[in-house]
Amino acid sequence: MVVGELAHERELIIIGGGPGGYQAAIRAAQLGQSVTLIERAELGGVCLNRGCIPTKVFTEGANRLASIRKAGQFGIESDSIHFNLHTLQTHKEKTIHQLREGIAALCKANKVELLSGSAFFLAEDRIGVENGDQYAVYRFKHAIIATGSIPFIPKGIEIDHKRIVDTWSITKLETIPETLIVYGYDYIALEMAMAFSVFGSRVTLIIEKNDFPFDHSINREIKRVFKKNGIKILRNTAISAAFADRNRVSINLENEVLTCTHLFVSTGQKPNTDNLGINRIGIEMTSSGFIQVNKQCLTSIPSIFAVGDVTEGPALAVKAIRQGKVASEAIAGISSEADFSFLPTIAHTLPPIASVGLTEQEAYEQGYQINVGQFPLSSSGIAAISGERDGFIKVIIDKESQLFLGLHMMGYGAVELITSGVFSLEMAARDEDWLFPTYPHPSINEGMLEAVESIKKQAIHILPPLRNEIYKV
Amino acid sequence: MVVGELAHERELIIIGGGPGGYQAAIRAAQLGQSVTLIERAELGGVCLNRGCIPTKVFTEGANRLASIRKAGQFGIESDSIHFNLHTLQTHKEKTIHQLREGIAALCKANKVELLSGSAFFLAEDRIGVENGDQYAVYRFKHAIIATGSIPFIPKGIEIDHKRIVDTWSITKLETIPETLIVYGYDYIALEMAMAFSVFGSRVTLIIEKNDFPFDHSINREIKRVFKKNGIKILRNTAISAAFADRNRVSINLENEVLTCTHLFVSTGQKPNTDNLGINRIGIEMTSSGFIQVNKQCLTSIPSIFAVGDVTEGPALAVKAIRQGKVASEAIAGISSEADFSFLPTIAHTLPPIASVGLTEQEAYEQGYQINVGQFPLSSSGIAAISGERDGFIKVIIDKESQLFLGLHMMGYGAVELITSGVFSLEMAARDEDWLFPTYPHPSINEGMLEAVESIKKQAIHILPPLRNEIYKV
Repeated sequence: MVVGELAHERELIIIGGGPGGYQAAIRAAQLGQSVTLIERAELGGVCLNRGCIPTKVFTEGANRLASIRKAGQFGIESDSIHFNLHTLQTHKEKTIHQLREGIAALCKANKVELLSGSAFFLAEDRIGVENGDQYAVYRFKHAIIATGSIPFIPKGIEIDHKRIVDTWSITKLETIPETLIVYGYDYIALEMAMAFSVFGSRVTLIIEKNDFPFDHSINREIKRVFKKNGIKILRNTAISAAFADRNRVSINLENEVLTCTHLFVSTGQKPNTDNLGINRIGIEMTSSGFIQVNKQCLTSIPSIFAVGDVTEGPALAVKAIRQGKVASEAIAGISSEADFSFLPTIAHTLPPIASVGLTEQEAYEQGYQINVGQFPLSSSGIAAISGERDGFIKVIIDKESQLFLGLHMMGYGAVELITSGVFSLEMAARDEDWLFPTYPHPSINEGMLEAVESIKKQAIHILPPLRNEIYKV
Repeated sequence: MVVGELAHERELIIIGGGPGGYQAAIRAAQLGQSVTLIERAELGGVCLNRGCIPTKVFTEGANRLASIRKAGQFGIESDSIHFNLHTLQTHKEKTIHQLREGIAALCKANKVELLSGSAFFLAEDRIGVENGDQYAVYRFKHAIIATGSIPFIPKGIEIDHKRIVDTWSITKLETIPETLIVYGYDYIALEMAMAFSVFGSRVTLIIEKNDFPFDHSINREIKRVFKKNGIKILRNTAISAAFADRNRVSINLENEVLTCTHLFVSTGQKPNTDNLGINRIGIEMTSSGFIQVNKQCLTSIPSIFAVGDVTEGPALAVKAIRQGKVASEAIAGISSEADFSFLPTIAHTLPPIASVGLTEQEAYEQGYQINVGQFPLSSSGIAAISGERDGFIKVIIDKESQLFLGLHMMGYGAVELITSGVFSLEMAARDEDWLFPTYPHPSINEGMLEAVESIKKQAIHILPPLRNEIYKV
């Protein structure tokens, strides 16, 4: 840029139209800011276009297909069931399109200016935006960086988006893999392993670590349920290289070569901060390469905020959303805070997983004396009706204070029930806060009560010996 | 009984093996009581054998059938779908049998003595039990009456269990009714109207009152969703008489005669207290014919407690269960209380309904100044994915204290989400307790946040004008 070149004046510029960026934009507009949102690709970001939403269309499809296969006992008979991946893709595209249009309409209604292009900082108060031949400079009072992340791919693996796919291309496959190896253990890895297993792929899940990242009871139940569904799991195993030819993928492990028709790599995300010019203006980074922010999402430069996957912490939309709102509120002079002490994590597997607060392992590591209560859904009346009897509800309670420390579930309804756990943590609930209320009958919710009751040896639907065993944990 | 006749000595006798009775029995056994449970028919009572559970097998079947019909967009193709009522009946019987065996096993493991027979009080400490030719007398220290309820059938209607059915026989129909009239507006009426509509019956719902018993937003959504499903609703309409012949049922309304192939009457329950001998021993009754109890479920006789549908209040298993435990705890000297201020009510309709706390109408009637927040599921990302876009989440907040007063939902996940509302009421949550936490993405749970945010004009996914309208409510 030539000094003296005309710069357009803007109040708040947000770079990136993912969940963090667009929710920050709308929140800021609600608070009276004049907002410009710059997106180089599509509104909705990774979450809507390539992450959460497309994979959830696939898990929903898998959920329905699995449900239909078990529908015979409910008197539902069908001559033959075919699964058409192409139709599911169409529904995915339609859903994404519709949600994207929704975001655009919300932006318009909130008078958020939308700009297409790639943005990069020129100074602490100036940004350049390039869109093909077009180039413009904007001067801003405040900016929010919400450029998200891109898949992190280990060395030795090259994504070709055909046989070796990442979280961006797994939902674009044109055929159902005959043999699918899934590399990783995040929620998308688990979801896609389960979904493609339901669609008919022979699935192997490879994880580098010794186990999954959840409470050990969930980790055990994942292994049991995945095995029951024919999904193989290789633990403590790293892929050193993977090559695709026309017909298959060869995968090098330490002492072994595996082959499959498709490899899905879901080994995490890395912040998308290249070409943003943040080095030029000297924004401080953390040692692991994220943008350093405080609890109000302010960077080391007083006019620039950063939210979502470019900041330290789990690369989850829920984090970006909250941070986006907090940043916009901070800019408007409202001192809210992004606090992720009680961030719920979920996976839309079959059955789903949901977790919040301390795991049993973490509680011990942090020196708590704890009581652990657990209720198996196999003892639930509503699970007997639906036939969805896998899973459990587990609570962690501090022995001394009786304070609720964590809720870990795998099973039908887990995603919706988890907010009860979030509220319990936020409101500092004690075991008595779970023992006193009533729970609708019949419902999975009743299992939450019995999980806490099991600690006190007063669960009704757990046989006395098992009750004692759990108490001893 | 002849004076001096031998009476067997027992510590605690419980009459009735429904959810209130068997859970009281197990709780008492946990607390060291020696327990005898008397049931004249089948363990599990009305709830398991003739109420909650059988109807839930039907709603689950309807749910799956409706889901399969909408599965095409997810790429699931099937040549033809048949529904076989007989198979569903078999699943129902199997489920009931399995749950009944489960209760028997729990009783055995807890050393609860099971007696078959009809019981009636002889004195404040003695009971007779008749089983065919057998007759025995038991002396007890304490007794709990948990004999439940039977359907209340309005005058002029005679249940023949073939064409005119009640909540006990609706799930035993041998064919799918061609035209089904449902009389009543309780949760079973709504559930069966919806389920049989999905199974293929032409359904008309007749309710005596002007509207359904929920928050007015739920009432409105029921009407909209039922209409969309082809279910007719006649309000302010009473049936004065109904007659069945071989082929059809004639129904007399005030100025009209309707005909249908089947009539289902679900107009409430009445306490099952006849032939119990409770008049003989002078147990006090309420003016509406229920057994009078205090908060510990003690009757006017210090050795006798009563729980469940024989006591005042909604005829719901959740109430019986809690009362059963409270009575057993009271007998063991633990002073717990049955408090139903925040009793959740649910209906497993399509989509489900769940409600807890004050409705908007009740809040106004009780003189509250309130804020009402509402989020339509049509604006939810996860609902766009699943296509289940009917319904909403509605919160009622006290304007002055910001205390949470009620949660009312219709929509996918409502049953599981309602416990968040129960906890919020029990723990005296304020709006900020819903605004501060994070909600998993994508999930229906996020709609709870937006419902509260809508009050503060800060919901992200509600267009600004609509946001204002809601604010004015």
